[in-house]
Amino acid sequence: MPSTIAEKILGAKVGKEVSPGELVVVDVDGVMAQDGTAPLAIKVMRERFGEERVFDPEKVAFVIDHTAPSNNPGTSELHIEMRRFCRKHKCTLYDVGTGICHQVMVEEGRAWPGSVFVGADSHTVTYGALGSFATGVGSTDAAIAMMTGRIWFKVPEALKFNLIGKFREGVMSKDLILKIIGDLKEDGATYMSAEFVGDGLKDMRIDSRLTVSNMVVEMGAKVGLMPADEEVMRFVEGRARGVPKPELTFPDPGAHYKDEFTYDLSEIEPMVAKPYSPANSVPVSEVEGIEVDQVFIGSCTNGRLEDVAVAARILKGKKVAPNTRCIVITASRNVYLQALKKGYVDVLTEAGCLVTFGTCGPCVGAHYGVLGPNEVGLFTTNRNFRGRSGHRTSKVYLASPATAAASAVEGKIADPRKYLKVRVRDMEV
Amino acid sequence: MPSTIAEKILGAKVGKEVSPGELVVVDVDGVMAQDGTAPLAIKVMRERFGEERVFDPEKVAFVIDHTAPSNNPGTSELHIEMRRFCRKHKCTLYDVGTGICHQVMVEEGRAWPGSVFVGADSHTVTYGALGSFATGVGSTDAAIAMMTGRIWFKVPEALKFNLIGKFREGVMSKDLILKIIGDLKEDGATYMSAEFVGDGLKDMRIDSRLTVSNMVVEMGAKVGLMPADEEVMRFVEGRARGVPKPELTFPDPGAHYKDEFTYDLSEIEPMVAKPYSPANSVPVSEVEGIEVDQVFIGSCTNGRLEDVAVAARILKGKKVAPNTRCIVITASRNVYLQALKKGYVDVLTEAGCLVTFGTCGPCVGAHYGVLGPNEVGLFTTNRNFRGRSGHRTSKVYLASPATAAASAVEGKIADPRKYLKVRVRDMEV
Repeated sequence: MPSTIAEKILGAKVGKEVSPGELVVVDVDGVMAQDGTAPLAIKVMRERFGEERVFDPEKVAFVIDHTAPSNNPGTSELHIEMRRFCRKHKCTLYDVGTGICHQVMVEEGRAWPGSVFVGADSHTVTYGALGSFATGVGSTDAAIAMMTGRIWFKVPEALKFNLIGKFREGVMSKDLILKIIGDLKEDGATYMSAEFVGDGLKDMRIDSRLTVSNMVVEMGAKVGLMPADEEVMRFVEGRARGVPKPELTFPDPGAHYKDEFTYDLSEIEPMVAKPYSPANSVPVSEVEGIEVDQVFIGSCTNGRLEDVAVAARILKGKKVAPNTRCIVITASRNVYLQALKKGYVDVLTEAGCLVTFGTCGPCVGAHYGVLGPNEVGLFTTNRNFRGRSGHRTSKVYLASPATAAASAVEGKIADPRKYLKVRVRDMEV
Repeated sequence: MPSTIAEKILGAKVGKEVSPGELVVVDVDGVMAQDGTAPLAIKVMRERFGEERVFDPEKVAFVIDHTAPSNNPGTSELHIEMRRFCRKHKCTLYDVGTGICHQVMVEEGRAWPGSVFVGADSHTVTYGALGSFATGVGSTDAAIAMMTGRIWFKVPEALKFNLIGKFREGVMSKDLILKIIGDLKEDGATYMSAEFVGDGLKDMRIDSRLTVSNMVVEMGAKVGLMPADEEVMRFVEGRARGVPKPELTFPDPGAHYKDEFTYDLSEIEPMVAKPYSPANSVPVSEVEGIEVDQVFIGSCTNGRLEDVAVAARILKGKKVAPNTRCIVITASRNVYLQALKKGYVDVLTEAGCLVTFGTCGPCVGAHYGVLGPNEVGLFTTNRNFRGRSGHRTSKVYLASPATAAASAVEGKIADPRKYLKVRVRDMEV
């Protein structure tokens, strides 16, 4: 039977054709947890199973990223526990400063075309952009996967997103995914495999694609898969810790999709998701002029080199508006090092941004830019739920790094097309 | 009567000779408060005096530095209140990312030779290195100074520190002040003017001198004054917001000092202050080999360009030890920009440090590297009181940036002279 990408990857794992609704138990190629979830996973091992165990230390990694470095002694205690576990079981700890877990997993080649990966973090779906069946699980499931190397899934139904055309100047992949989530709403893809195909993908660098897959969970999707084309294969070459199987990442002609959608990238406008849902997305024109107290450029959604390059291009020679703060946190030390070498860190610092790297920071309201009562934020993150990034009366608007940088300049939500007169794919980053 | 520096500055303010013990009321040239104290000062104005008032908006400044940017909605609320006050009263707010208050005051020329400055922060004594009678006051006194432009002092007795000779390779001014505080103990200079004179000063850049004055409060001193020599005058030129009076900063021959001490800089060794007092200082050899969980290079004591240059020189081409974290926070955005241009940020990031700027961070245990239970820190800060920088069972050792960087390389307290084979004054920074 012709299969979707999800069916092909899971089918290859169990050695037979699989169909939506079927329960399968598969070997995982990697398991990850972060400082919000790893301590819980360790607790599950000890309290529910009476032992700490790691099926393969090469395939289990912890990342300290949510509050990195620590903001209080309680957090420090969780970090200490993670360090102890990794030392004892010889699995890798990516300590404070390495990066946000999803960026680190991608950089470190822990997910690759055809692999199955589970992470105790909902945005593990990010690696779908590399053709990995990667998804977030709870701490209990993560613990079991770490102990046994196996996990069960219900084979998901799938939605096909056919991407055609090219983005216009000033528009980014974040705008596309905000538009899609706005169309499908929070539950439009619940437990489904969102599969993105078509020539439109060629208009997106890996950075752009990761942004799209990162946010599929905001419409409930189990995974957000993309074919491993030449660009993906170049990216994973010399990096992947297992053998890439790109052939599993192209859906068979005639594969059954529950629904299909076509998006013409040239019709996508800069989008902004209003509080308090990523699905509340509207064209920027509808919210232009709203005053912004804090702009945040970063997170696992938009903290990569392309994002920083776009922000730097817009902010170069300009200043952040006087009553607005602009915080830039690159998703990893590696991205920061690249941004240093390209001069982007200089540009952003001179513009008045606060710059650092490797923490989720204000996205999760943990530290480094938590919003106060009634404050308005424009964030490049993936969630703007009430109270997530600060006080429960604060409001977060979600947008692309281009829109964020333009808004930092004006001190209010602004149309990035005024500032970015180039197509992102055509920019050197 | 021949006068000490403190007597000369206060005497000039009141237009007559003054003697120790005398109460004087003087005009202040500047008043400052930070996010820990400004909200209290505002409260004092409203609740005790029934009004908010600023005697001269040009001379009053607030700095958000202790938790910058905010780590929780409560902190954000304090920041919002400071922004409101500064907007309403037209005084300057140095918002998150500008820098640590003392570095900002110095960079912005708010203290100069012969000036009187009060800040609602105990390390306001820092500017004594520029010949400013600068001292920390409580929030109530700060509020009154902000409202009236005046403050009272008891004219302090004075101690003279005659500095001779030159530092040896790998030794920094931090080692000198730790040695002095170790000799005099926590109360050895209580309410006195610690005055540093002699050719030894010529072996210290402004950065080095600020470190010494910064810490005089750890032996109880009211101020830590130094003559405004040519190097100081070059530094304040074009920067000072008032007219420098360098003549007030040289003590008269025969001025009365309660006690005099001579320190030969060539005899100073790298020093480390053991928990839980800056006065517990010992030569590094006595603590070498103690394992360190976290190194912190930064703070108003040692977050300046010279400090970063020393750290970068030691860490260049090396890696931070695997079980040690190294956090570098420059004292201001300006320092960070200079460090970027010199390539120090690249070097430190490549070595595995976490780098950012403009917050007190872990020094005050507010965020960005708070120590957990039983963790050991080696910090370049000024205070290692129990619980200040994290859990009450954590331990902080104080040392110079050279000792800190060497210890980051080894993962345990290390002698910087193994790594820094040059005199700091002879280094290009």
